[in-house]
Amino acid sequence: MTVSDLPSPLDPAGVHAAWLPPEALRAIGSRRTLVHGDGLLVETVHDEVARACARYGGSVLHRAPGGGCTGRPGGRPGARAVGREGEPYDLVLALTTADPLPAVAEAVRAGFGRNRGTGDHAAGAEGYVIDRHDDITVVIADDPAGLLYGLFHLVRLGGRAFGGTRRAEHHRPATPRRILDHWDNVDVHPVMGQVERGYAGGSIFWLDGALRDDLSRVRAYGRLLAACGVNAITVNNVNVHAGEARLLTDRLGEVAAIAGELRPYGIQVHLSVGFASPVTLGGLPTADPLDDDVRKWWAAATERVYEALPDFGGYLVKADSEGQPGPFAYGRTHADGANVLAEALAPFGGIVRWRAFVYNHRQDWRDRSTDRARAACDHFAPLDGLFRDNVILQVKHGPIDFQTREPVSPVIAAMPSTRVAVELQVTQEYTGQQRHVCYLAPMWSEVLGFRPWGPGGRAVADVAAGNTASDTEDGAAGGGLVGVSNVGADRYWTGHPLAQANLYAFGRLAWSPDLEPAAILDEWIDLTFAPVTDGDPERLRDALHAIMDDSWRTYESYTAPLGVGFMVRPGHHYGPDVDGYEYTPWGTYHFADRDGVGVDRTRATGTGFTGQYPRPWSEVYESVERCPDELLLFFHHVPYGHVLRSGSTVIQHIYDSHFAGVERVAEARRRWDGLIGAGVVVAPALHTRVRELLDEQLRSAEEWRDQINAYFFRKSGVPDAHGRRIP
Amino acid sequence: MTVSDLPSPLDPAGVHAAWLPPEALRAIGSRRTLVHGDGLLVETVHDEVARACARYGGSVLHRAPGGGCTGRPGGRPGARAVGREGEPYDLVLALTTADPLPAVAEAVRAGFGRNRGTGDHAAGAEGYVIDRHDDITVVIADDPAGLLYGLFHLVRLGGRAFGGTRRAEHHRPATPRRILDHWDNVDVHPVMGQVERGYAGGSIFWLDGALRDDLSRVRAYGRLLAACGVNAITVNNVNVHAGEARLLTDRLGEVAAIAGELRPYGIQVHLSVGFASPVTLGGLPTADPLDDDVRKWWAAATERVYEALPDFGGYLVKADSEGQPGPFAYGRTHADGANVLAEALAPFGGIVRWRAFVYNHRQDWRDRSTDRARAACDHFAPLDGLFRDNVILQVKHGPIDFQTREPVSPVIAAMPSTRVAVELQVTQEYTGQQRHVCYLAPMWSEVLGFRPWGPGGRAVADVAAGNTASDTEDGAAGGGLVGVSNVGADRYWTGHPLAQANLYAFGRLAWSPDLEPAAILDEWIDLTFAPVTDGDPERLRDALHAIMDDSWRTYESYTAPLGVGFMVRPGHHYGPDVDGYEYTPWGTYHFADRDGVGVDRTRATGTGFTGQYPRPWSEVYESVERCPDELLLFFHHVPYGHVLRSGSTVIQHIYDSHFAGVERVAEARRRWDGLIGAGVVVAPALHTRVRELLDEQLRSAEEWRDQINAYFFRKSGVPDAHGRRIP
Repeated sequence: MTVSDLPSPLDPAGVHAAWLPPEALRAIGSRRTLVHGDGLLVETVHDEVARACARYGGSVLHRAPGGGCTGRPGGRPGARAVGREGEPYDLVLALTTADPLPAVAEAVRAGFGRNRGTGDHAAGAEGYVIDRHDDITVVIADDPAGLLYGLFHLVRLGGRAFGGTRRAEHHRPATPRRILDHWDNVDVHPVMGQVERGYAGGSIFWLDGALRDDLSRVRAYGRLLAACGVNAITVNNVNVHAGEARLLTDRLGEVAAIAGELRPYGIQVHLSVGFASPVTLGGLPTADPLDDDVRKWWAAATERVYEALPDFGGYLVKADSEGQPGPFAYGRTHADGANVLAEALAPFGGIVRWRAFVYNHRQDWRDRSTDRARAACDHFAPLDGLFRDNVILQVKHGPIDFQTREPVSPVIAAMPSTRVAVELQVTQEYTGQQRHVCYLAPMWSEVLGFRPWGPGGRAVADVAAGNTASDTEDGAAGGGLVGVSNVGADRYWTGHPLAQANLYAFGRLAWSPDLEPAAILDEWIDLTFAPVTDGDPERLRDALHAIMDDSWRTYESYTAPLGVGFMVRPGHHYGPDVDGYEYTPWGTYHFADRDGVGVDRTRATGTGFTGQYPRPWSEVYESVERCPDELLLFFHHVPYGHVLRSGSTVIQHIYDSHFAGVERVAEARRRWDGLIGAGVVVAPALHTRVRELLDEQLRSAEEWRDQINAYFFRKSGVPDAHGRRIP
Repeated sequence: MTVSDLPSPLDPAGVHAAWLPPEALRAIGSRRTLVHGDGLLVETVHDEVARACARYGGSVLHRAPGGGCTGRPGGRPGARAVGREGEPYDLVLALTTADPLPAVAEAVRAGFGRNRGTGDHAAGAEGYVIDRHDDITVVIADDPAGLLYGLFHLVRLGGRAFGGTRRAEHHRPATPRRILDHWDNVDVHPVMGQVERGYAGGSIFWLDGALRDDLSRVRAYGRLLAACGVNAITVNNVNVHAGEARLLTDRLGEVAAIAGELRPYGIQVHLSVGFASPVTLGGLPTADPLDDDVRKWWAAATERVYEALPDFGGYLVKADSEGQPGPFAYGRTHADGANVLAEALAPFGGIVRWRAFVYNHRQDWRDRSTDRARAACDHFAPLDGLFRDNVILQVKHGPIDFQTREPVSPVIAAMPSTRVAVELQVTQEYTGQQRHVCYLAPMWSEVLGFRPWGPGGRAVADVAAGNTASDTEDGAAGGGLVGVSNVGADRYWTGHPLAQANLYAFGRLAWSPDLEPAAILDEWIDLTFAPVTDGDPERLRDALHAIMDDSWRTYESYTAPLGVGFMVRPGHHYGPDVDGYEYTPWGTYHFADRDGVGVDRTRATGTGFTGQYPRPWSEVYESVERCPDELLLFFHHVPYGHVLRSGSTVIQHIYDSHFAGVERVAEARRRWDGLIGAGVVVAPALHTRVRELLDEQLRSAEEWRDQINAYFFRKSGVPDAHGRRIP
C-alpha cells in the first residue's frame, strides 16, 4: 500500500487534532524507517510513518517476513546501512517474529538481556523494547500491538528519539485491560441528553438516532486512544434504554461498523447490555439467570455477536442499580447474574464487567443506620470467589460516586478471589463538567498508589493489574483500569480543550500507573501545543503547569469541604446546593446543624463503615485524631470548632479554603490571559474557548465560595477570623 | 332539529362526566319545556333540553320568533297551558327579544320590576331572570348566552327548580371576562412536558404534534365550562415555543377548529402570541413596537385571524419575562409593546392581555436590595394611563408566584387608569400538583374579597370587574378574572378527581365572586356525585366537606410556614426543599439562619415593598405586631422565639402546624376510606384513584413535616415543646 492509497480520515474537518497534530510525527516523518513484520497493526504502523514521510520528506520501507517490500528505500548519505538490502535506516520497527535483521538482533539481545533479571524474557503482549545505538533507533515487539505502542512512544520522544545513544528500555502495560466506557445513547434521552454526563456535545458514534454516516472521526479517535495507551472502549451507556438494547441484536451491525474503524488501532469493542435482555429482546417470560432458556438465550445471542465481531471484548452490566433490572428480581445473587453472561462469553474469550455500583437509591433520609458508602462491600464481599474466571467486578474508585475527594473503596481490598477493575470518571460530572479546569491525574495517581493494607502492602494499581504471586505474569488476573469517557462531538473532543489532558492521562496511567502527573502533563503539552505554537514554548508550558498541576486541589478547595462531598445541585450536578441532596433518597448527606457537620461512619458511634477497611486504615479512619483532614467529614461528625491536624478549625478551614480557591482560579485566569502578547501563541479559537471557560469557572467558583461560606456562617454563627465578607 | 339529529359528543368514551353527568339534567328532561328565541346558543339550550328529554321522557318545543316550531308539544294533564298553542309547559326559556308569551311577560315584569331599584332595567349581557309562579318556571334573557347560563342555573337547582313558588331572581356575571388560560404546547416540551405545569396528562387539543382528529372532548369541555360560568379560553401556553407560534399564522386553522367546537357553548378563543412574532414568523429585522413595518405586520396578521375567526377574543402576551422576548430589547416600554397589538385588535373588538409577571430571574442572591415582590409594581405602576382601552394588564394575585399564601399583589391597587385582570392558578403548581387535595376556593375568595384600601373600600373583585362610577355598567372597564387551567387528557380531566372542584369553583367565582366556597362545593357535590351515588348522599357530602373545606389551610400548615413561601424542590416544584431556591437567581429567599427566618420587606429596614400598598395595609404590613401571622415571614425577618399574635413562638408554630397538618391529612384519608361499606357508594375506579392519591398526599405531607421540622431544628436548636420526634 502506498501513501497515496491511504484514506486520510485522521484529521476530520474542523476537529482539533488533540495530542496528534501532524507536527507530532515530524521527527519520524523526516527520517528513513524500516517497518518489519506483518499484521493489521503493523500496517497501521507503516501507514502512520508513511503519512508522516509524505508530509516531512522521509521514507519508509515495509518488509513482511514472507515476502516483498513497499515504500521507497532511501539513500541518505552518512547513515549506516544495516538492512539486508543495505539501506541506511534511522529507525527500525520490527516484530521479533520477523526474520532478524542485525539491528533487531542486537536490540533483542541488549533489551531482553538487561531485563532478564526481572523475570521477563520477551516483550510480552503489547510490550516493546526501544533501543538506540550506532545511530539507529530500534523498536521491537512480540506482537503488532506492541509495535504500534512503540511507535507512539517515539512520537512522544520526538527528536529526542534520534539523538545520542539510549539504553534499551523495555515497556509493557501494567494491565491488558485499559478501557474507556462511553455513556453514549443512540437517541437523545429527554433528561440525560445523548451522552449521559457528557459535557462535550453529542455522541461521536450516533446522530439523530442512527449510526453516523461518516465514521472518520471514530477512526481518528481510535488513533488518539492508541497513542495514549487505551485498548478498548464500551460504545454505549451503562443505563441501557430500549433503542440501545438492540445493539446486542438487530442493531449489532452498528457496533461492527464502529469496531471496524477502531480495529486498525488495536481498540477492542465492548457493549453495555441490559440484564433483562432475554425478556425485552428475546421475548422470554423471565431473565432469571438460573433459567435454562435464559442461559440458552444469552449463549445464542453471544454467538451471533462473535460471528459478526470475532474480536469482540465483552459485556458491561449495571444491574440492580438506580432502577436498572438485575438478578435481585429473581431472588438470585449478583454472582448468579454475572456468571450466566460469563458462561456465554467464555467460549470466545470474552469477559463480563459487572458493576459494583449497587445501593439503595430509595433510602429514607430519616434512617441514620443506612449508609450508602457501605453498600458495595455489603453486597459484593460475601460473593468473593463465586464469580467465574471471566467475570470482572468493576468498582468505582470511591465508595460513593466519583466525588472530588473520597477514600478508596474498601471493595478493592475486600475480594482477593475476584478480578477487580477500578473505574475512574474521566468525564467531569462532579469536578466541573469540563467548564472548570480540573486536571484529574493527581487524584487518580493518589488512588492508584493507595495501599489498602498499609505501607509495604500492595497498591490499588496492583490489585487492578492482578500482580499477586498467583496471578499470571501478564496481569490478566486483574480487572484493569476503566475510565468513563469525557469525549463528544465537540470540535475539541472534550468541551474544555484542557480537559483533553484528562483523557490522555487516563490512558497513560492505565498503561503505567506510577507515572508522575506532572510528567504526563509535560508529554501532553509537548504533543498538543509545542508543534503548533510559535513563540516561547517554555512560557506556555509554565503557564499550563501553573493552571493545571494543582487544579484538582483548587477545585476541591472551593467546593464541598473536607471530604464530605455531594453539595451539588441535584440532577445536573453542576454548581453548589449544600442541602440539595440532604433530604433525598439518594443516600448522600452531610448532617450539618448549628453545632457541627459530617457523617459519623465510625464503628464506635456511627454506621461502622470504617470496619470495611483492613488495618491500618480501619484504625486510622476510625480515629478523629488520625483521620486525614481531607477526609475528616467523610468519616466523622465534628463541631465547627474542631481543630484539624493542620491547626485550623473546621469552620475557619471552610472559610479559608474557599477564599483561597477562588483566588487561585483568578490567578489561573490571569495566567491564561497573560499568554497573549507575551511571545506565546496558541490558536486564537482555542485561546478564546479556554478564556471564556475560565470566566465561567471564576463565576462559578465565587458562587461556590459564597454559598458554602454563607451556608456555614448562617448555621454556625462563627464569623470569619479575617473579617472577609460573607454574603 | 330533532334529538336523533344531534351528534352527542358530550360523553366522550371513557371520560368522566365531571359536574354534568346525564342525571344532572333529569329534572329538566322529565318535564315539558318551551324554548323561545333564536341564535346558536338558543339552539344549544334546546339541544340540551332535548337530549335530556330523550333520556328522561320529557318534551321540548323550540319556537323561533320568526317562524315555526320543532319538538313534540306534550299534553301532560294538570299542567297549566300558557303557550299560544295552549301546551301545558313546566318550563319556559325565552329571549326578551322574542315575541312575548304570557309567562315571559309576567317574568319580565316581575323580575325586572323588582330589580329596577338597583339600576338594572334589563337582564344584561349574559344575564338572566329566573322566576316561578303558577307552576311554571321561567327563564328569560336578553341574549342567547344568558339563556344558556339560565339553563345551567336550573341544572344546579335540579328538582328544586320546579317546586313551589320562587321569587324572581336576576343573575348576571360580575365581569364579562371569565377566562381560562391553557398552558398547552402543541409539541411535548423536553423539560416542561406538553402541558406546562399540567398534572392531568397531555393536552386535550393536541396529540403527537398535531391537532387531535377527534375534538369531541373539546366540545364536552366547552359544555362543562359554560355550566360553571367560564366564557373564554386561551388555547396555548404563554411561553410560546417555535411550533406554537405558528398558531397565529399558518396553523391558524387549528385554532379555528377548536373555536368551532366551543362556539355552541359561548366559549370565545384567545391565543398566546410571542412578542417577537414579526421577526420569527414575519421575517422582519425587528419587533420594535414603534416600527411601522412591525405595526403593519401585526395589523395584517390580526386581520387574517379575524377573517378565519370573526369572534376571536384576543391575544395573551408574556413579554420580557423568564426569557421571553419583549419591548425592553428595543428600549420601549411595556405600554408601547401592548399598544401595538391593541391597535391591531381594536378594529375587531379584540383585547390584548399583557402579563405583569415581569421580574429579574437572573438575580444575584447576594444582593439584598433587590426584591422580586416589588418587580411588577416597579415595572408597571409608572405606565398607568398609557395603555390603550383594549389592553388588559393581567396580574397574578400575589406579588411572587401563586404560592400557597401570599399577600395580594399591590399592582391591583396601583393602576386606577388601567384595566386589570386578576390571574389565579387553578392548576396546582405550588399547591400539591393535583396529587394533594387542596380546594382553592377559600384562598381565591379571600383574595377576591381583600380590600386594598381598607374596610369600606373596593375589593379586588371590584377592581377586576371594573365597578367604579366611571365604568360602564356591564363591568367592561375591568379586566376580569383569569385562571390557569388544570385540565388535561386524563380521564378525570384534572388528574385528582377532587381537583375538578377547583375548576368548577373558578368559574363560579368569576361569575359571582361573593359566593361562599362551601356553597360552591355543595353545588359541585350535588352535580358530580349525588345523581350517580347510591346510598346516603348526605354522608358523602359530609365526608367531602370534611376532606375539602379546609384542605388549603391544611396544605399550608404542612408546607412553607407563615407566608415565607417557595420551599419547594426547584424545577418541578413538588415536595419540600427548604434551601432549594435559597441561593438561586430566581429571587425567592427565606434567609433562615441560626437565629431567625423571614424576609424583611419593610420600609424601615428592608426592601420597602410594604410601601407599594395603600393605607392601611402599608402600615399593617410594616408593623411586626400588626402583620397577620400567616404573612409574617413574607414581610419580616424575626427570631425563632418571636411570639406570634396567636401566642405561640415562630419555631413552636412551625412544629405544631406541621404535626397538625399531617394529622389532618391522615384523618382525610380515614374519612375517604370510611366511605366504603358505610352505605355510600362512589364509582370504584374514582374511589381507588382518590385513595391512592391520599396515600401519596400523606407520604408527601410527612416528608414536608419532617424536612421542615428537621431543617429548623438543626438551625435553631430549639427542641419541640411537646417532645415529639424530629428526625
